[in-house]
Amino acid sequence: MSERAARDERRENFLWWTKISSRWADCDAYGHVNNATYYSWFDTALTLLVDRGILRAPGQTSIGLCIASECEFLAPVGFPETVDIGIRLGRLGSSSITYELAMFGEAADKASAVCKFTHVYVDAETRTKVSLTEEQGSAIGDLLRN
Amino acid sequence: MSERAARDERRENFLWWTKISSRWADCDAYGHVNNATYYSWFDTALTLLVDRGILRAPGQTSIGLCIASECEFLAPVGFPETVDIGIRLGRLGSSSITYELAMFGEAADKASAVCKFTHVYVDAETRTKVSLTEEQGSAIGDLLRN
Amino acid sequence: MSERAARDERRENFLWWTKISSRWADCDAYGHVNNATYYSWFDTALTLLVDRGILRAPGQTSIGLCIASECEFLAPVGFPETVDIGIRLGRLGSSSITYELAMFGEAADKASAVCKFTHVYVDAETRTKVSLTEEQGSAIGDLLRN
Amino acid sequence: MSERAARDERRENFLWWTKISSRWADCDAYGHVNNATYYSWFDTALTLLVDRGILRAPGQTSIGLCIASECEFLAPVGFPETVDIGIRLGRLGSSSITYELAMFGEAADKASAVCKFTHVYVDAETRTKVSLTEEQGSAIGDLLRN
Repeated sequence: MSERAARDERRENFLWWTKISSRWADCDAYGHVNNATYYSWFDTALTLLVDRGILRAPGQTSIGLCIASECEFLAPVGFPETVDIGIRLGRLGSSSITYELAMFGEAADKASAVCKFTHVYVDAETRTKVSLTEEQGSAIGDLLRN
Repeated sequence: MSERAARDERRENFLWWTKISSRWADCDAYGHVNNATYYSWFDTALTLLVDRGILRAPGQTSIGLCIASECEFLAPVGFPETVDIGIRLGRLGSSSITYELAMFGEAADKASAVCKFTHVYVDAETRTKVSLTEEQGSAIGDLLRN
Repeated sequence: MSERAARDERRENFLWWTKISSRWADCDAYGHVNNATYYSWFDTALTLLVDRGILRAPGQTSIGLCIASECEFLAPVGFPETVDIGIRLGRLGSSSITYELAMFGEAADKASAVCKFTHVYVDAETRTKVSLTEEQGSAIGDLLRN
Repeated sequence: MSERAARDERRENFLWWTKISSRWADCDAYGHVNNATYYSWFDTALTLLVDRGILRAPGQTSIGLCIASECEFLAPVGFPETVDIGIRLGRLGSSSITYELAMFGEAADKASAVCKFTHVYVDAETRTKVSLTEEQGSAIGDLLRN
């Protein structure tokens, strides 16, 4: 994933946090939360972050689409269980943002999964790539700081 | 559910058919397709039916919203498995349509689940109830006949 | 659904409570939580209730399977949104339990959905119907009272 | 992802195939299949492949767990839509297998998504890593060839 190994990620490496609780139907026949469901949780955490920020400013004509994601699965999650999801900025491109996320069991300091999501910004109508505005660049930094 | 007991439903009682295949993540920790997922399958079958009909006519300003559903679960479904979903018209109201559906294992003549969905038509903008048009009434009958 | 109309359900009619938060992927293309997902939420609330009770007593050889469910949808739920789910005992049969549930928006006193789930108890091995024990009967009553 | 760019993947690069149809609830509020759902589809395709092979041989005491996955999203998928999922062997380790998968719209030769899944084999009881047997190694090769 990145230079820092997924196994070495700790809570202190992440800046913005949210909680997700597992549902009965999240578990597959092996009795643990299905691997695809992890992405759904990370996606939800990210959407919550983006929604509360000025990244969706009034009059904004661009939208962010997920163009790539990846995850390392380090420990199983069951039902019922609540995890903490931490988010930090990975890379800020000219028209894209990469977020790095990790999921921690409630009492755990080692991540049970570590993930990356890359969003590219496109014009909502034409779906052609657009540059991030200066406001978006600084907003994302601010958001992740509280 | 209805006058006819769910256990007595047979394939010959349904007019329009589609197939759905289970996915690995549909199964919950008991190793069978989760009960909530059955509704997702019935909803998909119904949306396929409605989409191909003139119920979504050009210029139509009403949309159908699900206001009630119910299901009797008679036999488990596993992974991998493909089921046949049959649909018939239950009740045609002045602004609502009730569909009756049943799910059959591929070689089975007895239903593994029997379900009802009621859609009410509302104006897409104001969300106030609107009457079904004469065209919609006859379209639904025609649709279910082939 | 029952003698009391779904629209007239209020918070005071339910005894045991849990919270569920919507996820981004819960919404369908209409921008609201999909109708099948409501059942997944109710199922989760119910499993949480059952799990914490003595209904899963050590040495218990029976399991509860969902044999019927139904729901009336009264108001849409969006993302992000957290709802309160209330549960009460509907009917206690000799080998089955019917639960009645309702979902309330955080500031709302009127239900956005009202639901029923019936579980029948079967032997885990043979899957034949078994009677509820006296302990189970009183446990369910106690559980719903706190 | 790999040396070959995701955009350049073609149908001829994959050996084993299955079909998946979208469901109404797969689409999120943007009206397209949600990114997390792609993983659920790939996971289903992979489980189908593994299930039909001798990788689950009688008496086998190891199970494969997903330890990493990644995906590049190249084109949206809607409802209703059926896609073809192709699978090839990525890398065969001493105790792990990496699969490479791609999803193609029915008439398309360019992939709408390209994905990798790595499974590690562990003892079903102790969950400690075990070596792939010689039979598993040759089975996976054979499986992907028809």
